[in-house]
Amino acid sequence: MTNKPSDSFFTPVSGFDLPRFAGVPTFMRLPHVDLDHPRIGDVDIGLIGAPWDGGTTNRPGPRHGPRQLRDMSTMIRAQNGATGKRPFEAMNCADLGDVAPNPADIIDSLERMQAFYARVKKAGIRPMTGGGDHLCTLPILRALSGDDPLGMVHFDSHTDLFHSYFDGTMYTHGTPFRRAVEEELLDPRRVVMIGIRGTAYDNEDRDFADSVGIRVIPIEEFHARGVEEVMAEARDIVGDRDTYVSYDIDFVDPAFAPGTGTPEVGGPNSYQAIQVVRELEVVNIIGADLVEVSPPFDPTGATAYLGASIMFELLCVMFRQEQ
Amino acid sequence: MTNKPSDSFFTPVSGFDLPRFAGVPTFMRLPHVDLDHPRIGDVDIGLIGAPWDGGTTNRPGPRHGPRQLRDMSTMIRAQNGATGKRPFEAMNCADLGDVAPNPADIIDSLERMQAFYARVKKAGIRPMTGGGDHLCTLPILRALSGDDPLGMVHFDSHTDLFHSYFDGTMYTHGTPFRRAVEEELLDPRRVVMIGIRGTAYDNEDRDFADSVGIRVIPIEEFHARGVEEVMAEARDIVGDRDTYVSYDIDFVDPAFAPGTGTPEVGGPNSYQAIQVVRELEVVNIIGADLVEVSPPFDPTGATAYLGASIMFELLCVMFRQEQ
Amino acid sequence: MTNKPSDSFFTPVSGFDLPRFAGVPTFMRLPHVDLDHPRIGDVDIGLIGAPWDGGTTNRPGPRHGPRQLRDMSTMIRAQNGATGKRPFEAMNCADLGDVAPNPADIIDSLERMQAFYARVKKAGIRPMTGGGDHLCTLPILRALSGDDPLGMVHFDSHTDLFHSYFDGTMYTHGTPFRRAVEEELLDPRRVVMIGIRGTAYDNEDRDFADSVGIRVIPIEEFHARGVEEVMAEARDIVGDRDTYVSYDIDFVDPAFAPGTGTPEVGGPNSYQAIQVVRELEVVNIIGADLVEVSPPFDPTGATAYLGASIMFELLCVMFRQEQ
Amino acid sequence: MTNKPSDSFFTPVSGFDLPRFAGVPTFMRLPHVDLDHPRIGDVDIGLIGAPWDGGTTNRPGPRHGPRQLRDMSTMIRAQNGATGKRPFEAMNCADLGDVAPNPADIIDSLERMQAFYARVKKAGIRPMTGGGDHLCTLPILRALSGDDPLGMVHFDSHTDLFHSYFDGTMYTHGTPFRRAVEEELLDPRRVVMIGIRGTAYDNEDRDFADSVGIRVIPIEEFHARGVEEVMAEARDIVGDRDTYVSYDIDFVDPAFAPGTGTPEVGGPNSYQAIQVVRELEVVNIIGADLVEVSPPFDPTGATAYLGASIMFELLCVMFRQEQ
Amino acid sequence: MTNKPSDSFFTPVSGFDLPRFAGVPTFMRLPHVDLDHPRIGDVDIGLIGAPWDGGTTNRPGPRHGPRQLRDMSTMIRAQNGATGKRPFEAMNCADLGDVAPNPADIIDSLERMQAFYARVKKAGIRPMTGGGDHLCTLPILRALSGDDPLGMVHFDSHTDLFHSYFDGTMYTHGTPFRRAVEEELLDPRRVVMIGIRGTAYDNEDRDFADSVGIRVIPIEEFHARGVEEVMAEARDIVGDRDTYVSYDIDFVDPAFAPGTGTPEVGGPNSYQAIQVVRELEVVNIIGADLVEVSPPFDPTGATAYLGASIMFELLCVMFRQEQ
Amino acid sequence: MTNKPSDSFFTPVSGFDLPRFAGVPTFMRLPHVDLDHPRIGDVDIGLIGAPWDGGTTNRPGPRHGPRQLRDMSTMIRAQNGATGKRPFEAMNCADLGDVAPNPADIIDSLERMQAFYARVKKAGIRPMTGGGDHLCTLPILRALSGDDPLGMVHFDSHTDLFHSYFDGTMYTHGTPFRRAVEEELLDPRRVVMIGIRGTAYDNEDRDFADSVGIRVIPIEEFHARGVEEVMAEARDIVGDRDTYVSYDIDFVDPAFAPGTGTPEVGGPNSYQAIQVVRELEVVNIIGADLVEVSPPFDPTGATAYLGASIMFELLCVMFRQEQ
Repeated sequence: MTNKPSDSFFTPVSGFDLPRFAGVPTFMRLPHVDLDHPRIGDVDIGLIGAPWDGGTTNRPGPRHGPRQLRDMSTMIRAQNGATGKRPFEAMNCADLGDVAPNPADIIDSLERMQAFYARVKKAGIRPMTGGGDHLCTLPILRALSGDDPLGMVHFDSHTDLFHSYFDGTMYTHGTPFRRAVEEELLDPRRVVMIGIRGTAYDNEDRDFADSVGIRVIPIEEFHARGVEEVMAEARDIVGDRDTYVSYDIDFVDPAFAPGTGTPEVGGPNSYQAIQVVRELEVVNIIGADLVEVSPPFDPTGATAYLGASIMFELLCVMFRQEQ
Repeated sequence: MTNKPSDSFFTPVSGFDLPRFAGVPTFMRLPHVDLDHPRIGDVDIGLIGAPWDGGTTNRPGPRHGPRQLRDMSTMIRAQNGATGKRPFEAMNCADLGDVAPNPADIIDSLERMQAFYARVKKAGIRPMTGGGDHLCTLPILRALSGDDPLGMVHFDSHTDLFHSYFDGTMYTHGTPFRRAVEEELLDPRRVVMIGIRGTAYDNEDRDFADSVGIRVIPIEEFHARGVEEVMAEARDIVGDRDTYVSYDIDFVDPAFAPGTGTPEVGGPNSYQAIQVVRELEVVNIIGADLVEVSPPFDPTGATAYLGASIMFELLCVMFRQEQ
Repeated sequence: MTNKPSDSFFTPVSGFDLPRFAGVPTFMRLPHVDLDHPRIGDVDIGLIGAPWDGGTTNRPGPRHGPRQLRDMSTMIRAQNGATGKRPFEAMNCADLGDVAPNPADIIDSLERMQAFYARVKKAGIRPMTGGGDHLCTLPILRALSGDDPLGMVHFDSHTDLFHSYFDGTMYTHGTPFRRAVEEELLDPRRVVMIGIRGTAYDNEDRDFADSVGIRVIPIEEFHARGVEEVMAEARDIVGDRDTYVSYDIDFVDPAFAPGTGTPEVGGPNSYQAIQVVRELEVVNIIGADLVEVSPPFDPTGATAYLGASIMFELLCVMFRQEQ
Repeated sequence: MTNKPSDSFFTPVSGFDLPRFAGVPTFMRLPHVDLDHPRIGDVDIGLIGAPWDGGTTNRPGPRHGPRQLRDMSTMIRAQNGATGKRPFEAMNCADLGDVAPNPADIIDSLERMQAFYARVKKAGIRPMTGGGDHLCTLPILRALSGDDPLGMVHFDSHTDLFHSYFDGTMYTHGTPFRRAVEEELLDPRRVVMIGIRGTAYDNEDRDFADSVGIRVIPIEEFHARGVEEVMAEARDIVGDRDTYVSYDIDFVDPAFAPGTGTPEVGGPNSYQAIQVVRELEVVNIIGADLVEVSPPFDPTGATAYLGASIMFELLCVMFRQEQ
Repeated sequence: MTNKPSDSFFTPVSGFDLPRFAGVPTFMRLPHVDLDHPRIGDVDIGLIGAPWDGGTTNRPGPRHGPRQLRDMSTMIRAQNGATGKRPFEAMNCADLGDVAPNPADIIDSLERMQAFYARVKKAGIRPMTGGGDHLCTLPILRALSGDDPLGMVHFDSHTDLFHSYFDGTMYTHGTPFRRAVEEELLDPRRVVMIGIRGTAYDNEDRDFADSVGIRVIPIEEFHARGVEEVMAEARDIVGDRDTYVSYDIDFVDPAFAPGTGTPEVGGPNSYQAIQVVRELEVVNIIGADLVEVSPPFDPTGATAYLGASIMFELLCVMFRQEQ
Repeated sequence: MTNKPSDSFFTPVSGFDLPRFAGVPTFMRLPHVDLDHPRIGDVDIGLIGAPWDGGTTNRPGPRHGPRQLRDMSTMIRAQNGATGKRPFEAMNCADLGDVAPNPADIIDSLERMQAFYARVKKAGIRPMTGGGDHLCTLPILRALSGDDPLGMVHFDSHTDLFHSYFDGTMYTHGTPFRRAVEEELLDPRRVVMIGIRGTAYDNEDRDFADSVGIRVIPIEEFHARGVEEVMAEARDIVGDRDTYVSYDIDFVDPAFAPGTGTPEVGGPNSYQAIQVVRELEVVNIIGADLVEVSPPFDPTGATAYLGASIMFELLCVMFRQEQ
């Protein structure tokens, strides 16, 4: 991971050259560089689609997320309007394509994904993933986590800390972080979960969080304290060691992000959705994801557009790391 | 109305047993107990559909509300994430089915509904209704109101206090509370209307409110003073005597609740939509409704899902009454 | 399975009593009789939801099929307009609810479903299933097939006869009938597949069909010969022994049935979709299904309404068997 | 009713002058001439909106029909592509605006509508109505029918001949022609109903038809005999005396006309939908309507566009009468 | 421009006379008075549709804006619920119809529009335009601007100050205000742009703004300072001389206004969308527009309804000018 | 243009390797080979997007067509189910990306497109274009036509033969073939237009067709004679010389293809839509297009899926030419 001067190969197509609705849609109009591509060694940040929703216990659809995220991401321009950053000039970003899941086999899919991200890590590329449901994060963490468990900033309306579903099913989109703590991929004392809300089955997940030291910030606290104060605490929790950022689009209120399988009312608005990312600027982000965008429940594409906007903001805070 | 220990008959189906998208959809996956069912005598709170929009003078559709509210309500789990309450364990809740209207006869429908709710009241059941348009509230009040007129907390963007429409038509969804005051079903000095906004025909409704002592809190005041202060006043107004809660989904801003016939922009967000209910905890609620959900104008079901979430919050504040 | 006189318990709710958009939606407004219900022994035909799409390799959604089929089925009245039959009067029909799948475990789901249908069969009930994806048919056949393999009339645009997907995955919605032939649940010489079309991976499925004697009638032949001639051949193939009818909604052209995961253009219209069922009158149907209705891809509910109409026509030809 | 030379006042706005999506949308871009307009006396055919669905017992929405019919009708050009007729040049056509219903009073609405059409008839104008539900046709017939009962060609999937609904409700969209026969507005022996299909409550309507001599042509017969033969019989039935044409959009298959409240599968396609009108050329049409277009169930406007196309074809066969 | 007593000709149709969903839809149910109408000389404020999106470089559709704005505007009543103003009683307002663009020729369209608005100005009418894309504002400014360049309050997420697109194309919806400053139609020191946000190509537009003295208030500043403070500054900037108000609907967050071609997340909510207009009360508004409503991207019409509500609020602050 | 043995570089991604909803969507999952790519010289047939609707005079949107066609085309498999052809094995097919239009300049766009297709022709590649509106065909013909004017089979509901629109505008999607005949790009006696229907402005286009010898087959004749007979005549008209195939998706009935700007009812169904292409097998096709797919008017993507299916069928008849 090095800081390279601008390389025109990695420059996104400009909307002044080809209108933004045109062209084969890659993430943010970046070049498509698969793992066997000759330029793969020059990539700093790889945008990857994880078209899989095998862990979804409620309404399906996130398998379609990567494609619609790519489609809407072509409306993103090169410069952050608020901060002036131009991430594509200081880092080599590329669309690495989709990791291939097996839609009819969960264990096989987990293995395929872990193998893919292991190659990404080995190539020195920090991955930015567009999901897929939240179970996708587990094989990513398995691939990225090394000797030291990772810290994590987790935006979501659910903790995804349940032990199992349906009489013993261990792998669903409600269990990835239980597994990740059990497998010591995450250091629970360096994990913060922000925006938790909605009705609950019981207290099992929250009791587990307490027992291992995960900090849960429910939406009531988020609204009461505000973005700045909450995110200052989040930065304190993860510290300056390697940290993963996992952003479930259902963190945002469903009026702003209707296209998701398990929405919960009462969430942040789209301005807050972006502010929380900007507050991560000093965090040492070694990978990130934006998951649970479900196009079949989003007739206008608004959710994917918000998702793509969040991915761009994430890039802009990962970008700082290069300098 | 007594406080019973948990009764497994009245336990909603768990999402861990049957996925939440599955099964015959009753309100919140409660047992379907119609008025002739052997267990009807054990019901504390009855969830009832009022599939009627005969009073709608603008865009129709609330007749379809109960079914979509039921459908989306199966995504509600057993425990309030914010307060920890588990209403279905301390009270026997059941889906009493739909009251049968006559879609082509307003007066007949009003009578059918009043008779149904009279039976509900007689059975000692507090009704929680999913509408239907706002005229549905009139026959409910006729059935529930006894010697003492009721207080009412009314969330809405309209007062529904007009005298008549179209040259003398007395029963529309814009007139129920005028009738209810005239018929002494409500004590106007114990009525508060919150969130009123939008363009107006004239001042007739507001002048009437002033003349009888109804307190109207327009949206500008709501936004300026905030939820806590407004709701403290509302609690003062209704006091500790019997109070009905009537919640028109168009109280909420149309970005959060597009599926309604007469939306008005500039309303509360979904977090405030729920906060106002939580502030009712000490109120003596003898019945409640959530009306004007119109599925034909809601392509994603988001409005019904918010409506079901509000109904659950209402249950949680009615629940306290049992203890 | 006996022919009982009309039993008012099993009479659907009339639209003249409760409007058709009202009430808790069971299949065709029949009583909800689960497997533990005291009247289960009196049921002749059980309408069952199979809310599962774990075998779907393309666009998901059929897990939501049963609920929307129920919803739209309440628009079905008691009498067949064309033939005058009144199936609910001569047979006891009931909604048996949904079989509970495990959305995150395919093998567990197959076992749960087989066990459920084994109980149905044991109770002497002929099942009429609303899917679910086409893999649901496999556990049904496992439960229904006895010593003699069954015949099958299969309406579909795909043969669903593939050996495996994704490097060895044996259970997907593209493989159920390969498994069923291998397991001798079906007698391939008594199987006819009608309406096959669309682009193909290769000839593997068709070669297998030829090798075991399954008769495949592609859509070109269907359009050239017409409904009557094709269905006469189908009746000859299955003969008078026990026969299952499996109807994939993607048999019908996507203009008439857009809500499905793998549509293929050039199919029959809705009149032909119903005619083919009416031609089954003399067939000895021991069970039937209507699968692959995917509500997330059907903004108007038209597909589920057509599906419910086909289910009613299937009931009307199963009805004859009682006499 | 006289044949006037072309009058530029009555010329629709051309798409070459103002694009067809532009401008205040009147029916077919004709001038808006209300009943008090100075040019009302020169109108031959008046296009009228009947924005009322008070008789709807199932899914509402046709009250929104006239506006969407107007909107989509601006895509209609001046000349019939098949027959070369230019109806707006030989007859003075105008948009008379909407008859004002009372959405909350059925009887009042029926009276308002009858009074409006009585003025239309008195002005010598033949009305072409865009509904509205099918109950709208009753007050029109009351206004138009004189000493001699009228003949009627009725395209529909339902007979609308029921006696009453919901325990005695006489005025619904399922009863208008029962009332019209009872009131001797129609001569039943000169009435033909084409396209009848779908499930039925019972045989009450068909028995009534038989008893009074109404000819019902069910869809099976329609498909078997074909448009030409069926329409030849229809012309024979109505003969050369005054005849009304009532066209319920649910005559057409729901794939072509999804936006209606009570669709029935298995109907004609859009080509047949237009052919049947062209076959009415020699009929003496004194008024016509196109009803039951329900925009809330039609996300693309396709139904209203088909409805406007049918209205144009109706104008083209009424046009012949002027010569 | 004079203050006339109420004139019944200019009174909108009341919802108590004709339901709000009924009738030929003109803007706010005002009379349709085209430029050749005998009463044109009595009009104070003309509501005009500009059905043109020839300058759109991204997603098209605003050409359909005027019609849907008219449609939804019929839900607006006569009185401002918050301020009590009744604009239609103190000013003569009318729907002047649509200016006719040439959809296939940009220069011709600009000339047609300028000529139309020149006639409007000459007739002493202040125009309130419903667009159309933002390029529509350029010909309006060309027609309205006289010897003194105008001030402008501009609500938008984009500055629309670019020099050119696609290698030299000067007229797009991203360039109108660059042209207007170059042509001295606007006085840049009296121009304020509020709500600017989203990703950017580069700083060209902002540098230009700085160089000529246009005040740009980005959304971060807007959210930090609040509506009142920002609008006080805006009033200071434009002062008491002639000012134009241009309101791009994409100023508002896409959750509230999804139907637009180039949405940017993180914007104001619908309450703020209206508040900013109310703060313009003392500004000397000589014309206003509401642009970029794109119905094809707005399945529910919510955007047009918000747009119509904003137009009504604009009328209410223009109304003050008459007194 | 030579017949090469199978080249794995040009093999589409299989759905058995990467699910069909996954991956960066190129046309039919072919490799993306732009004009500067090293393998461009090996391409036989180039699939090209023309994301431009600058000639659209009615409802816009086809600029979004190429992207949705690509998206839906990933559901196409490698083999024609009816004919067994495997076009990707005998010809090298590739996605050449989109030609870059200038959305705000028609003449510039025409020139950009012509230049692009001239390069395609020079590279010996036969182009298969996904539009875009029908004006896109003009620059393609300008590039492809050589010394001998081309023949053309044209499927459409409109002739697109008008002289001009809006007082002299020569380039719209209603004029391309008038220009093409004037410029001698087409030999009118070798041009056949099939499916023409809908209302007309006047006879100007048909008179022109007659005057130059273009054969127009209206939809009435198409339905009366049937696909085989009509297409036999079409083959006779174009003969064995170089022929272009231009397929406007509005040829198909809007029930099957709702997503288009100027639909006309009464068209062919989707089976006929494909049959007509299969009948072109012996025609010497030097290029083809599928235009006027407008995603904003197609909520389900059904139109693009039919469009992609037609493009595949066109490939299969172009494929024969290679042998």
